[in-house]
Amino acid sequence: MPHLYDFSATDGSDKDLLGGKGAGLARMTSLGLPVPPGFTITTDVCRYIMESGEVPPDLWDQVDDAIERVEQQTRRTFGVRPAPILLSVRSGAKFSMPGMMDSVLNIGINEKVAAALIGWSGDAHFAWDAYRRFVQMYSDVVLGINEDHFQTVLRELRTHRGVDHDSELTATDLKEATRRFQQIVEDQRPGELPSVPIKQLHEAITAVFKSWSNRRAVEYRRMTNIPDDLGTAANIQMMVFGDLGSDSGTGVCFTRNPATGAKTLYGDYLPRAQGEDVVAGMRNTLTLDEMGERHPECLAQLVEIMSDLEAHYRDMLDIEFTIEQNTLYILQTRVGARTAAAAVRLAVAMEREGLIDRRTAVGRVAPASLEQLHRPQVADTVDQATAITVGVAASPGAAAGKAVFSSEEAVKGSKAGQPVILIRPATTPDDIHGMAAAAGILTSRGGKTSHAAVVARGMGKPAVTGATDMVVDIDAGVASAGDHDIRAGDLVTIDGATGAVFFGPVELVEPEPLPELVELLSWADDIRTLGVHANADTPEDAATARRRGAEGIGLARTEHMFMGDRLEVFQRIILSVDDDDRQKALRELEQLQIGDFEGLLVAMDGMPVVIRLLDPPLHEFLPSRLELEQEMFRRFRAGQPIDDLQAMSDQVARWEEDNPMMGLRGVRLGLMLDDLYHMQARAAATALVRRLKAGGDPHLEIMVPLVADAEELYRVRQVIEAVAAEAAQESGLELKIPIGTMIELPRAALTADSIAAVADFFSFGTNDLTQMTYGLSRDDAEGLFLRDYLERGIFRSDPFQTLDRAGVGRLLRVATSEGRQANPELVIGLCGEHGGDSDSIAFVNELGLDYVSCSPPRIHGARLAAAHAVLDN
Amino acid sequence: MPHLYDFSATDGSDKDLLGGKGAGLARMTSLGLPVPPGFTITTDVCRYIMESGEVPPDLWDQVDDAIERVEQQTRRTFGVRPAPILLSVRSGAKFSMPGMMDSVLNIGINEKVAAALIGWSGDAHFAWDAYRRFVQMYSDVVLGINEDHFQTVLRELRTHRGVDHDSELTATDLKEATRRFQQIVEDQRPGELPSVPIKQLHEAITAVFKSWSNRRAVEYRRMTNIPDDLGTAANIQMMVFGDLGSDSGTGVCFTRNPATGAKTLYGDYLPRAQGEDVVAGMRNTLTLDEMGERHPECLAQLVEIMSDLEAHYRDMLDIEFTIEQNTLYILQTRVGARTAAAAVRLAVAMEREGLIDRRTAVGRVAPASLEQLHRPQVADTVDQATAITVGVAASPGAAAGKAVFSSEEAVKGSKAGQPVILIRPATTPDDIHGMAAAAGILTSRGGKTSHAAVVARGMGKPAVTGATDMVVDIDAGVASAGDHDIRAGDLVTIDGATGAVFFGPVELVEPEPLPELVELLSWADDIRTLGVHANADTPEDAATARRRGAEGIGLARTEHMFMGDRLEVFQRIILSVDDDDRQKALRELEQLQIGDFEGLLVAMDGMPVVIRLLDPPLHEFLPSRLELEQEMFRRFRAGQPIDDLQAMSDQVARWEEDNPMMGLRGVRLGLMLDDLYHMQARAAATALVRRLKAGGDPHLEIMVPLVADAEELYRVRQVIEAVAAEAAQESGLELKIPIGTMIELPRAALTADSIAAVADFFSFGTNDLTQMTYGLSRDDAEGLFLRDYLERGIFRSDPFQTLDRAGVGRLLRVATSEGRQANPELVIGLCGEHGGDSDSIAFVNELGLDYVSCSPPRIHGARLAAAHAVLDN
Repeated sequence: MPHLYDFSATDGSDKDLLGGKGAGLARMTSLGLPVPPGFTITTDVCRYIMESGEVPPDLWDQVDDAIERVEQQTRRTFGVRPAPILLSVRSGAKFSMPGMMDSVLNIGINEKVAAALIGWSGDAHFAWDAYRRFVQMYSDVVLGINEDHFQTVLRELRTHRGVDHDSELTATDLKEATRRFQQIVEDQRPGELPSVPIKQLHEAITAVFKSWSNRRAVEYRRMTNIPDDLGTAANIQMMVFGDLGSDSGTGVCFTRNPATGAKTLYGDYLPRAQGEDVVAGMRNTLTLDEMGERHPECLAQLVEIMSDLEAHYRDMLDIEFTIEQNTLYILQTRVGARTAAAAVRLAVAMEREGLIDRRTAVGRVAPASLEQLHRPQVADTVDQATAITVGVAASPGAAAGKAVFSSEEAVKGSKAGQPVILIRPATTPDDIHGMAAAAGILTSRGGKTSHAAVVARGMGKPAVTGATDMVVDIDAGVASAGDHDIRAGDLVTIDGATGAVFFGPVELVEPEPLPELVELLSWADDIRTLGVHANADTPEDAATARRRGAEGIGLARTEHMFMGDRLEVFQRIILSVDDDDRQKALRELEQLQIGDFEGLLVAMDGMPVVIRLLDPPLHEFLPSRLELEQEMFRRFRAGQPIDDLQAMSDQVARWEEDNPMMGLRGVRLGLMLDDLYHMQARAAATALVRRLKAGGDPHLEIMVPLVADAEELYRVRQVIEAVAAEAAQESGLELKIPIGTMIELPRAALTADSIAAVADFFSFGTNDLTQMTYGLSRDDAEGLFLRDYLERGIFRSDPFQTLDRAGVGRLLRVATSEGRQANPELVIGLCGEHGGDSDSIAFVNELGLDYVSCSPPRIHGARLAAAHAVLDN
Repeated sequence: MPHLYDFSATDGSDKDLLGGKGAGLARMTSLGLPVPPGFTITTDVCRYIMESGEVPPDLWDQVDDAIERVEQQTRRTFGVRPAPILLSVRSGAKFSMPGMMDSVLNIGINEKVAAALIGWSGDAHFAWDAYRRFVQMYSDVVLGINEDHFQTVLRELRTHRGVDHDSELTATDLKEATRRFQQIVEDQRPGELPSVPIKQLHEAITAVFKSWSNRRAVEYRRMTNIPDDLGTAANIQMMVFGDLGSDSGTGVCFTRNPATGAKTLYGDYLPRAQGEDVVAGMRNTLTLDEMGERHPECLAQLVEIMSDLEAHYRDMLDIEFTIEQNTLYILQTRVGARTAAAAVRLAVAMEREGLIDRRTAVGRVAPASLEQLHRPQVADTVDQATAITVGVAASPGAAAGKAVFSSEEAVKGSKAGQPVILIRPATTPDDIHGMAAAAGILTSRGGKTSHAAVVARGMGKPAVTGATDMVVDIDAGVASAGDHDIRAGDLVTIDGATGAVFFGPVELVEPEPLPELVELLSWADDIRTLGVHANADTPEDAATARRRGAEGIGLARTEHMFMGDRLEVFQRIILSVDDDDRQKALRELEQLQIGDFEGLLVAMDGMPVVIRLLDPPLHEFLPSRLELEQEMFRRFRAGQPIDDLQAMSDQVARWEEDNPMMGLRGVRLGLMLDDLYHMQARAAATALVRRLKAGGDPHLEIMVPLVADAEELYRVRQVIEAVAAEAAQESGLELKIPIGTMIELPRAALTADSIAAVADFFSFGTNDLTQMTYGLSRDDAEGLFLRDYLERGIFRSDPFQTLDRAGVGRLLRVATSEGRQANPELVIGLCGEHGGDSDSIAFVNELGLDYVSCSPPRIHGARLAAAHAVLDN
């Protein structure tokens, strides 16, 4: 069985086996692009190693043969004069995991080879640089020796030579560095730095495969839901040298602008450097135009390759290249990470260009990313000249937050609910957690293709990179830019669209919707079969939702209407001992409630509006006893009277519950304090009558929460029907009010057949359903253990974000099929937070639900996700 | 289609169609017993009336024919001279619902008939008494006129005549009563008292059928789980007259003593009375011996009939009879209600007598009733002479509680958690709720077969009836006995085994187990296949449970071991900021815990002991913040320092949860504070080693609570297995510790297949599972709405008492079948409160569980219920 494939042996279509990088190299080779020769060891070998802890017995024989083929092709030899080749070993999984796994470069070097390279290139600087890089990387990746030892040496040499960058060291310095590196290894792991090239290669390959299971990679997969058993491939390739004299260099480019989607040259070039140097953002880069000044033919060739590759892949690509003595080599290509705005614009533009069809265009944009497009931008009225510094506009959008100088602080701040801006000289793969936690990222180094820029765009977070005027002193916790010192905790605003950095807050505004988005969503609407409704409690929210394409209100929470000014009236209803007073308060609230419902019906004229009757436990409308007690104590100390608080405390005690979420709420409240639901039903019927008389087209529905047994719904239904019949008689109008229930208790799902017999519709309340199915209170759990559970991988994903298919999803399946069987007319929706989550939408689309209902900011994403659900099927 | 059957037309085997009373009358008629002739209108007719609101079109024709047959048989005529017969219409459902539905007696009387009866009997007193009774009952049952009107008339006449009882009124008085009754009806419902006999009969039959749906009957059925759609039959029978002169009378007897099971004469006889008078307990009765002095032949005949009937029915019977002018008639027989002790003794005695086999004997005793046998009795050391009065020992057992004088007060007291003794002159069917709520019942009137006595025995409640020395003044709320006045709220103790009533408390003791029970349970053990284990947390409980037949401990709650003296140590573990101190406290607790586990293993040597790791949220071990705040306020006012409380409050706040039941508890605690479970596992392993070294036969198992996902159990399992392996190595012993989990969250049941893959056993924690499935916190719900839900029939039964088959039961079914499929070795038990409930046991027996585990007082019942589950299948 073959464990490896030469780049020239396949067309690169099997990404599962070759990984993304290997597939790209094979594909480019087959297209005749200038790819240095090499081969890919398959992901099967990775899985073999994970299971057995060893490499397959015949792997090394196959590697020997493959190297021989490279030698024949290049007419050079691995580890042998006169023109020895060096090799790189780079990981490459099916899905890109930037920087998470290891690579070893410059393999095959030793004293004799170094001497031969000097002879072949005439460049001792290059040869010793390659040698010290090899020792450094091999020691890190294979032997696990702390990088700091080597950095100390380099720092000493730079100081001694009086230069800033390693590239400015002399050949002598680099030879000295190589010697001292070798001594470090000999001290720490005597005899473990092999000089035999093939031995170096075997160890490096094994180490790269093992890096699939390193902690960082495992955590990244957890964050991004990449399965652990995919495994990585390893790519062994002849080195070409961007650091071989001033005619050489290395770069990264995108076929279009990945921040905005515009069709412009976009990339970074670093003369006299090896590939990793660009991404690491250690030195500031040149633009492609600047590169063109040095290597006009190479740039022309690169532009042509970009165009060819885009035509071939029909997508925007990210390309790594090296120029070795004026000759261009392509080292990698992959679909490029992009911001949401860029994704939308690219998809629509490529459809127009005829590169892709509409279905493909719709499938190209991640639904969850669309929320980014609602994120605020710096207002046009803000004077960009007030910026304290301007860097590279690496990822658009504005972010304001407290400055932090480490990823740990970023995570801590975000856990405490504070938006933070992570400020670093440059970011590395170790910063992934901090970047995920931050509201925005600001670095003093690195270009548009640096790690910070690429990852921020992928995460959809605003970022400004390469703010070179700014000096970041991590240890002191201060970033100085012009006259300003940004200290930890200071409020900073970054504008990722312009690269501007402001001290303190500036005015932010909601962006205009992209015209391309409107077009893309109309294509999505043509594809999807699932309805998208909104959770909205006010006419304003309803109007916003409708503008964004909502086809109705799936959930209007009436309790939100009892807050604010009206709280006092509602408290009287709860606490009044005088029935007259209570009735008066009820009538007062009824009048207000009629207005609430009318407003929603106006905003959603012609579309269904589902009103949910009062749900939360009553004490949510009352002060807590602990607070009252503390206030009493405070007042007593201040010599003030406390009798009123004491009286209130006694009344509140009556409604106190140990576990209010599972107590007197929802339909239980409606059955125990029956005039409340009666009042709400009457208000709904009155609003309906008024809208009909005003010539509107209202579609009001009433939803009963927290039903555990059909009998509960049946009794409330009788009350509502009686109220509706009365209103119909009084007004002489025909009133149709569908009555349904939330399915939010496991028992409701398990007895859906009997409930469906007395319901016109179901709406899955997956927030509560998840809580009850897991026996897990979300608010309590998040503070006390849920985050830890996710970090430790005890739960694979947050069940409140992504619907748990095995447990909660099974209940949905049961309720849907048995509910429909009992009542074929039953309309079924979902109105929990999962209504805006792509994975959950795919699941309920598969179940055949009629619609999802989500908050207004998630409606665009839900429309798109519903289309994806059809496309993926 | 026949709507009715003559008593002589069937053998009475179809109880569904004829009801219990009708079946008994037919059966007795077929046995040749002296039953007055008549016929039964079937339950089909009742269902027809419930559905259509009308009687079947040909019913009255069939009734006419049936009456003609009665006339032919008796050679007398309905409503026609010279010897007119009167008829009774009595309800009779499949299951006895004593007094819940209506009857009308003396039907067919009018002016002419009354005159004829005087001529036929020569007894004007009798004829007018029959007439006034007819008007009274017809007005009540058919016309719905309030009884009080008639009672006022009778009271006036008694006062005028200067007598205590209606039976002492003269014929003139009774004629006057009849006239005044007629006037009352004419005033209230003019023209609605028919004089035509057949008209009276039709109306009475219709009214009796409709009484199936009266509120009292509906509530009773709800309480006793009798389905609403069974319907009642109606029995139309020739009246025989117990009030026809001094040679007549009426009585009730049991074939054996229904309080103790002894084979003795047991019954009440009331001369010159109609049947209802005995049960109503309005006059005090004679014993059967006393009856025998008046009617020796009748008693001899009755004793023979009792013996014949018992031989025929092979059970203890309750018989109603009337003596009309020295001739015995049997009016009803049915299986007699009995106390638990009587049920056990009767079953064993009848098996010995060869009347029934062992399986039948086991099936004869209600499992739930066995708990009564653990109820305390008055100690032998108590001097019965200190009783303030002695009545009839109507239902054995002792009860102490506060005196209440109405059923409403009884319900109120019981809701407040106080045991109460309901004191009444006599009880009526309207008192059912009060009797159910009371700890014991005390009446001043009525014999051993009075309503109070029969119902109390059926409910298994202690009762003393006919305490004739005691004068009960309901309006004043005082019962006077000798020198004592019992006022509402006074503590009273009744001894239902001797009839003694004590003022205040007396010493009570746990009764010795009945030898017959031990025998009966051994028969049950031979039949059942389901294991019965105990929930026990202490060696004492374990020993008690084992004595009662438990075959292991299914649930030992370790949290109970952290209370009391040890609470302080445990609080240190939770709150300590100093890790050394925390570790010290942990080690301290470990030593104590080892002792706990050893004790359980000793008590259950040779049997499985399932230790559940810590389950409740930590703040259950800490004071509440509200209490701390209140205490701070109190201390502050008293001028005392509060700093320590403030510090405690801050620490407690960290563990505070809004919904602790769904928060950081169970396995979540074990994963977050991992040294706790580690300590418990180590203590368990150490205890196991010590018992093995001591030559014992310990079977320790460890149960992990609140698992929602297999991964949680898997991680804890790894910890336990590591600890066990270490202990095994240290001791050189082989340690087997099965590890399993509670299935108490819906998600655990829904993903049972993956959990079973890492579990050796499941134990359904149906308390929590019910709470989560219903989204209903039991403690909160009981105070705020659950009782109301049950009373209003929104929930048919309390899901915490009887397992909800549709919802929770469905989860059990899924988990059992899918768990077993994934792991065929899986042992499955149930350890919630339902483990002691018969209906739930029948259900889990059907599911094929291995065992149930219940509290020690319910073990006898569970053994019996497990046998019933087999017998009923």
